Amino acid sequence: MSSSDIFIGETIGTAILILLGGGVCAAVTLKASKARNAGWLAIAFGWGFAVMTAVYISGPLSGAHLNPAVTIALAIKNSDWSNVPVYLAGQLLGAMIGAALVWVAYYGQFHAHLTDKEIVGGPGAQATTAKAVEAEEQGAGPVLGIFSTGPEIRNAAQNLATEIIGTVVLILAVLTQGLNDKGNGLGVLGGLVTALVVVSIGLSLGGPTGYAINPARDLGPRIVHALLPLPNKGGSDWSYAWIPVVGPLIGGAIAAGIYNVAFA
Amino acid sequence: MSSSDIFIGETIGTAILILLGGGVCAAVTLKASKARNAGWLAIAFGWGFAVMTAVYISGPLSGAHLNPAVTIALAIKNSDWSNVPVYLAGQLLGAMIGAALVWVAYYGQFHAHLTDKEIVGGPGAQATTAKAVEAEEQGAGPVLGIFSTGPEIRNAAQNLATEIIGTVVLILAVLTQGLNDKGNGLGVLGGLVTALVVVSIGLSLGGPTGYAINPARDLGPRIVHALLPLPNKGGSDWSYAWIPVVGPLIGGAIAAGIYNVAFA
Amino acid sequence: MSSSDIFIGETIGTAILILLGGGVCAAVTLKASKARNAGWLAIAFGWGFAVMTAVYISGPLSGAHLNPAVTIALAIKNSDWSNVPVYLAGQLLGAMIGAALVWVAYYGQFHAHLTDKEIVGGPGAQATTAKAVEAEEQGAGPVLGIFSTGPEIRNAAQNLATEIIGTVVLILAVLTQGLNDKGNGLGVLGGLVTALVVVSIGLSLGGPTGYAINPARDLGPRIVHALLPLPNKGGSDWSYAWIPVVGPLIGGAIAAGIYNVAFA
Amino acid sequence: MSSSDIFIGETIGTAILILLGGGVCAAVTLKASKARNAGWLAIAFGWGFAVMTAVYISGPLSGAHLNPAVTIALAIKNSDWSNVPVYLAGQLLGAMIGAALVWVAYYGQFHAHLTDKEIVGGPGAQATTAKAVEAEEQGAGPVLGIFSTGPEIRNAAQNLATEIIGTVVLILAVLTQGLNDKGNGLGVLGGLVTALVVVSIGLSLGGPTGYAINPARDLGPRIVHALLPLPNKGGSDWSYAWIPVVGPLIGGAIAAGIYNVAFA
Repeated sequence: MSSSDIFIGETIGTAILILLGGGVCAAVTLKASKARNAGWLAIAFGWGFAVMTAVYISGPLSGAHLNPAVTIALAIKNSDWSNVPVYLAGQLLGAMIGAALVWVAYYGQFHAHLTDKEIVGGPGAQATTAKAVEAEEQGAGPVLGIFSTGPEIRNAAQNLATEIIGTVVLILAVLTQGLNDKGNGLGVLGGLVTALVVVSIGLSLGGPTGYAINPARDLGPRIVHALLPLPNKGGSDWSYAWIPVVGPLIGGAIAAGIYNVAFA
Repeated sequence: MSSSDIFIGETIGTAILILLGGGVCAAVTLKASKARNAGWLAIAFGWGFAVMTAVYISGPLSGAHLNPAVTIALAIKNSDWSNVPVYLAGQLLGAMIGAALVWVAYYGQFHAHLTDKEIVGGPGAQATTAKAVEAEEQGAGPVLGIFSTGPEIRNAAQNLATEIIGTVVLILAVLTQGLNDKGNGLGVLGGLVTALVVVSIGLSLGGPTGYAINPARDLGPRIVHALLPLPNKGGSDWSYAWIPVVGPLIGGAIAAGIYNVAFA
Repeated sequence: MSSSDIFIGETIGTAILILLGGGVCAAVTLKASKARNAGWLAIAFGWGFAVMTAVYISGPLSGAHLNPAVTIALAIKNSDWSNVPVYLAGQLLGAMIGAALVWVAYYGQFHAHLTDKEIVGGPGAQATTAKAVEAEEQGAGPVLGIFSTGPEIRNAAQNLATEIIGTVVLILAVLTQGLNDKGNGLGVLGGLVTALVVVSIGLSLGGPTGYAINPARDLGPRIVHALLPLPNKGGSDWSYAWIPVVGPLIGGAIAAGIYNVAFA
Repeated sequence: MSSSDIFIGETIGTAILILLGGGVCAAVTLKASKARNAGWLAIAFGWGFAVMTAVYISGPLSGAHLNPAVTIALAIKNSDWSNVPVYLAGQLLGAMIGAALVWVAYYGQFHAHLTDKEIVGGPGAQATTAKAVEAEEQGAGPVLGIFSTGPEIRNAAQNLATEIIGTVVLILAVLTQGLNDKGNGLGVLGGLVTALVVVSIGLSLGGPTGYAINPARDLGPRIVHALLPLPNKGGSDWSYAWIPVVGPLIGGAIAAGIYNVAFA
């Protein structure tokens, strides 16, 4: 693969991943969306099929890493870091493009949601009544959640552990798809199975932190959230931003280690 | 493929697509349906598996385009417009047959729903009470939604953009399934994966407009809605009808352009 | 295939089909089931994966028809009726065994549900209050629905049409899986895709009648319902029983005709 | 396969199975989980995709039994018991590791749930009010349910029968995947199809007992539940523990018998 194919493939693929992944969060969250309140199963399937779609489209160009944790783990496994910067650059750019496209596709919904008095509260609203507390739970926080992840219980050690555990599962599933004598021989089916692994991680390990398991998936859209002219959008929660970057990278490295010891 | 195989395949295939796709909307919407209120996940899976069923049945005859946006994009990609009119004619006819079959399968449900006083309101009812507003939201509008799509927020620019974005994703997934050196080699699996791509688009990008992403899917049933003798059916919203035709065609052309630049 | 393999395969396969298909209806319906009220999506996926499981288990023995409509359609397509009686006998016996196994697996749940005063009403209860009407809707009727299908709106013409339409879709999907030059070449994938076709029919066409689309699936369990010593079970609705037998057989014949004209 | 590959493969695979399977129960059950109340469909898909993920990762090392019932059934089928102890040891160890990882990933959620006054009741609380009864239904019982299974209606004969029936279905599906002349030839697809069989069993036969269908899946996490320092955790229900061990083993043996008589 040429560097330009890798860059274009990762950019297009990660843009589609985040467009569809952020899209399902917007669909389930925002006022005036037909899918509002479709629930966690919709979120989990939505992200899984987002991965599948992006993998099959970008696979022929770049091999469809779409995730710095995949890129790092493969570099460790293969002891080849030559293309890593191109992969990472494409992934971050693609994630930002994807997040911006979610904003385009749900433009009116974002505006309607964030300017709805019942959702974000009136001027000077304080969360002193049950109604107001509920409003906070429906307003700016969930809108940030369309872009990037956040914990239900803020505890750096647990949040990091949860992201590491989820990423180890993802990367082990990716690494064991090789065709060597310890590979599972999935071949072209790998894109579909990886997608269902992502559904599985979402259903099973997404509860505490929203399962970033991918630094680009979280950081790129968070930057876009900070840049976009959304009304009443609130902060971008930068104090948490390091966890969904560092956790998945540690998880990818651990998975590569397990693979090299047990499977290679 | 002969012209008659193409016409018969596209007619049968698009009829099955709309029978099953419109069917799930009827199932979830209408009074006296066992699936009433099954939710957006049912809609998204229902349309996706409708595509899968139609693709595997009609594939051997016509290649299963079932969507003018697919036909146009393949014509651009291959610079071959010879069979385009036959494909389009079969698709529009099939979509109308499919919509009529939904009406047959749910005949009693349509009548029960549209003549229910609590749903459509009594004679001369005006939406001046909460009850009446709710009735409007359950009545003729959703019944039109069984046939064709409509926006939650009526904004031509955004609605068009959302349809374009969704169609670009769909058509890129279709075009990259080729077996050339930049194809993903899905082969017979392509029907299943395309179906899950459609589930993904439904979950992630269906919220604002109901994801036509297929001109025949929207126009054919809208014509049938205008023709059918449904009681209290209301208008067919022709002022919106151009968007789900033009948007997907633009999206298909853009996807073909991206493909020719980045993947060919 | 030998006659004994066909009989054993169809008996085991149809028993598993009805055990899992009836099982999901019991799971979603009965008091003291962990899956109670899991909804229509659970029903549709449950029946679909029931078909898949039964097909892959019994396929090596009998080819996994598991449905008289499939057997009749293949006999018409191939002009070979020699094994038809063996297939039908295995299917009906298997369906009865499967329904009895549902009763074993949910034994306590059936008893708890049908003897619950709030569900079936007290002795001499009449549906004269809202509470009592609701009780009727939760009691014996849904329990019969665990065994066999019934219409939401009782209209023989529509009910028959709905069953015919659903079966045509199913049988066309089965018949086009051949490996001749108009087949879609699904091969071993056929079991999975057929399962998802059944999910599709359930989501899209199941609303009016509960989609028997298989005479054995409906008749065998209805006989078992009539025989089992269930308390307060009510009647077995024999006046409706011919529709889910005749409708699917007509649908299978129509699909075979369409196949022979358009695909052969 | 070497004994060490088998042991490592079964340990890693069963750990991933229980991490993801227990994880979805935690996700749906615990306070402060984003997936709380996602419902039975999420549970069934979560366990199914847990099986798929574990099978594809550990398959290259150990063949991915991950379940003593599978190991026993294959030993009976092949009359080869040589590696059985290694398989069982890896499975039990893996199940315990997986359950401990669920506790790590949901650490704060477990604590928040089990110390919530509204959920577990205050000191000395007695279930004398509707509120208190509801609290019991949300508290320690469901938390044990994250680790191991329990019946809705406690009846040893029925509970055993339900576990036997479910396991027979699972093991027949596993045994018929061989490539001999009575096998269904699934090959690498087997992992995906087995996962959907598990979804099917969960949807259809999980209602009464929570479908252990795997002795290690139930016993390992129950031991971990007894050992973990969870506040207000209640007992580990050891009086029930033999049923999800004995039932699946009987089911596995019956399935191997059916296979040897009907399919071999």
